Amino acid sequence: MTSEESVKLHIPANFASTLDVSLLKPTVTPTEIKALCEAGQREGFHICINSCYTPLVRQLVGPDFQYQVAACVSFPFGTACTHAKVDEARWAVEQGATEIDMVMAVGLLKEGPQYYGAVEEDIAAVVNAARAAGASATKVIIETCYLTDAEKETACKLVTHAGAGFVKTSTGYGTGGATVEDIRLMRRVAGPEVRVKAAGGIRTLAQCLALLEAGADRLGIGMAGSLAILDEARKAQA
Amino acid sequence: MTSEESVKLHIPANFASTLDVSLLKPTVTPTEIKALCEAGQREGFHICINSCYTPLVRQLVGPDFQYQVAACVSFPFGTACTHAKVDEARWAVEQGATEIDMVMAVGLLKEGPQYYGAVEEDIAAVVNAARAAGASATKVIIETCYLTDAEKETACKLVTHAGAGFVKTSTGYGTGGATVEDIRLMRRVAGPEVRVKAAGGIRTLAQCLALLEAGADRLGIGMAGSLAILDEARKAQA
Repeated sequence: MTSEESVKLHIPANFASTLDVSLLKPTVTPTEIKALCEAGQREGFHICINSCYTPLVRQLVGPDFQYQVAACVSFPFGTACTHAKVDEARWAVEQGATEIDMVMAVGLLKEGPQYYGAVEEDIAAVVNAARAAGASATKVIIETCYLTDAEKETACKLVTHAGAGFVKTSTGYGTGGATVEDIRLMRRVAGPEVRVKAAGGIRTLAQCLALLEAGADRLGIGMAGSLAILDEARKAQA
Repeated sequence: MTSEESVKLHIPANFASTLDVSLLKPTVTPTEIKALCEAGQREGFHICINSCYTPLVRQLVGPDFQYQVAACVSFPFGTACTHAKVDEARWAVEQGATEIDMVMAVGLLKEGPQYYGAVEEDIAAVVNAARAAGASATKVIIETCYLTDAEKETACKLVTHAGAGFVKTSTGYGTGGATVEDIRLMRRVAGPEVRVKAAGGIRTLAQCLALLEAGADRLGIGMAGSLAILDEARKAQA
């Protein structure tokens, strides 16, 4: 087997649909959102944006878009009060988001066991509000770069107990992104019904394939790198 | 006049009360918030935190704390939908915040004139909700590091028209912080009833004094550097 065949074997047929392609910087403009939506419709990937752009994205892709529209909540710090996280999630789903990517209360987790209940309640409140509004899943960003392995394990358990659909590594705006080791840890500790999303610092097809191999169900990548990765995947599959 | 006398002359007698001392990182713990509140009570400065910590701060400093408790809203990206910004601001004031530090919708401003109305409406909605809940001021972070001078001027006009109490330079989590030039621009363009807050990258007493001299009414500094700056000010005033 040549090296090219080896790569080819590992690229899933539905590769594009494992991707949440995002535009999340604070400076993102409606014009850039439009380009993302056009690429999403053309390439067939999920779209991940900040909540303020939910109505625009839904308007651009239309009601019948076959991929997810994921709206980020309390992004990227996770330090909004639960009340605001719930309100942001509910509003986004009402405006056309089908998934919510929320950021966990990282500081409360780091404080220790006496705050684990509060972390779980914060997650569960968003999960329940998003589900009640009709979302198909809530992803919980635990921001692995700030956590010890023990804290990552605790976070995965809290995410599972709170009933979330996904545990997600990173915002992409912390001090580090997704690693194969963290995906393995998260896959091992999170409940079997919880999917794993790798995000942050993913810039090559090889990284994508390694993270999928390690157990990731979804990959979050920036709009800037996404077209090159899709192109590389198409060439390898051709 | 010696150089020491020169510095002394420029330190306002109420220097500590020009400071909003903040702990805003996503990893901030309740234990760190406690240390900030103790320092605030001891030194007499305003406290600036993310909204999730508003109830804890108010509980720690008590109802009679003579300085402001400023809660950040949609921090640090400003990309939450208006609905969530309003909800976060209202909730924070109800829980004991006396000021709101919100982040403007930077991407909408950068898109151009057709979105200026939306930027102003986003600000005005938060200003009005915070005022109705009893806040004494809303500060609007325009994140100068991402703006051209013309965009900074536009932002100051929109902040003024929206009725906000302050225009504020930076979150401290963008690509740059407060500069003397930006404070001069903001002081010149914002309405006379709008105060100016410098924040981001302020780490020395000399920077504080230069920013006050340029027209800043309030300075946002991190907890880490605040005690050294206050110490330096006390020594210069002694």
